[in-house]
Amino acid sequence: MASVNNISKDRKGLFITLEGGEGVGKSTQSRLLAETLEKSGFKVYLTREPGGTKGAEQLRELLLFGGANFSCYSEILLHMAARLDHVEKMIRPALAEGKIVICDRYHDSTLAYQGFGIKGGDKDALALIETLRCFINCEADATFWLDMALEKTQERLSKRGNPKDCYERQEISFHERVKQGFERIYQAEPKRIIPIDASPCEEDVQEQIYHHVKALLVRKKM
Amino acid sequence: MASVNNISKDRKGLFITLEGGEGVGKSTQSRLLAETLEKSGFKVYLTREPGGTKGAEQLRELLLFGGANFSCYSEILLHMAARLDHVEKMIRPALAEGKIVICDRYHDSTLAYQGFGIKGGDKDALALIETLRCFINCEADATFWLDMALEKTQERLSKRGNPKDCYERQEISFHERVKQGFERIYQAEPKRIIPIDASPCEEDVQEQIYHHVKALLVRKKM
Repeated sequence: MASVNNISKDRKGLFITLEGGEGVGKSTQSRLLAETLEKSGFKVYLTREPGGTKGAEQLRELLLFGGANFSCYSEILLHMAARLDHVEKMIRPALAEGKIVICDRYHDSTLAYQGFGIKGGDKDALALIETLRCFINCEADATFWLDMALEKTQERLSKRGNPKDCYERQEISFHERVKQGFERIYQAEPKRIIPIDASPCEEDVQEQIYHHVKALLVRKKM
Repeated sequence: MASVNNISKDRKGLFITLEGGEGVGKSTQSRLLAETLEKSGFKVYLTREPGGTKGAEQLRELLLFGGANFSCYSEILLHMAARLDHVEKMIRPALAEGKIVICDRYHDSTLAYQGFGIKGGDKDALALIETLRCFINCEADATFWLDMALEKTQERLSKRGNPKDCYERQEISFHERVKQGFERIYQAEPKRIIPIDASPCEEDVQEQIYHHVKALLVRKKM
């Protein structure tokens, strides 16, 4: 099956994703990175998954708060449907314009949450995810994997006021499988994925990330 | 990639789908067939697509009335996500229990509407649909393709009071491509698909359909 988006040909920009379990600070770090880069004069498209388009945001609501309890394979297709819409309408055009795209969660979350967290590494689930990854064909240039001890993230989450989504409500063994999933993804792609110790304060974590981004920008001659 | 549902092993029931363009009478004929079979003592599961589960009905609402204008490949994944949920939770269990499943629209609609109607037979779209069909792996035993002249269906639709969904609102050339799509699907699978002239009155159409269903029941020793 051919893939739809042969993005590498017209990718002038840089595609950065932030990944990790619940409560590790991905949204904060995505925002801080976008602000820093914008201050340096870069054009940035800051976004998140599931989300980023009208339809993908509707799917986010359905997946996180809809209460339909979709079968896991359906859930994979829904995340991929949201991603395809996001890639075709927003990410690919932004990269073609030379922007830096910063995405709070992307493909690795589907692999870690649905492939490993829910399905425990079930080969049909992993094969389905891989088939659709190839079809979408829009890889991140670099991925920051924010990692910290589960006890600490659970503590952070318990302090948050907003209503918990369906993943945040899962028991600890689920989050352990997700964490192990990210570890396996990192082992498989150590060049793309940069592990970040997310336990220090916001500023220190941002410094770690920005240090790597600067090097990436030099390499990409941006 | 392996398929998830090897249904043939435990299929005691019979899986009948009704397909065709807008306004040909699929819903009415599905209901009439279910009533006739129930009167004869069969256990029937009457359903529709997209739909049939809580999540799939939420997706139906999103697809038909959500106004998000999903990219076509996303739309394919959403229909398939709804189908997977429907198959896993409802259709497969009903068939395993020996029920007659009657589904108002199923896989051929995705092929005719998204593959041919929107994408005009684009090979990436057809390949994506085919890959996911194999993954879902739950084929209809027989499909009634209700067909009639477009002028007549357009006339019927204009008389309906309910708000038009996103497909009903499409221009005539779209419906022509959908009709040609069903024709091509029929040519590819003439054993499964039974063309039905949908232009006579309800009772006559039902008689045509029931004539074939009786033969199917004899063949399946039901």
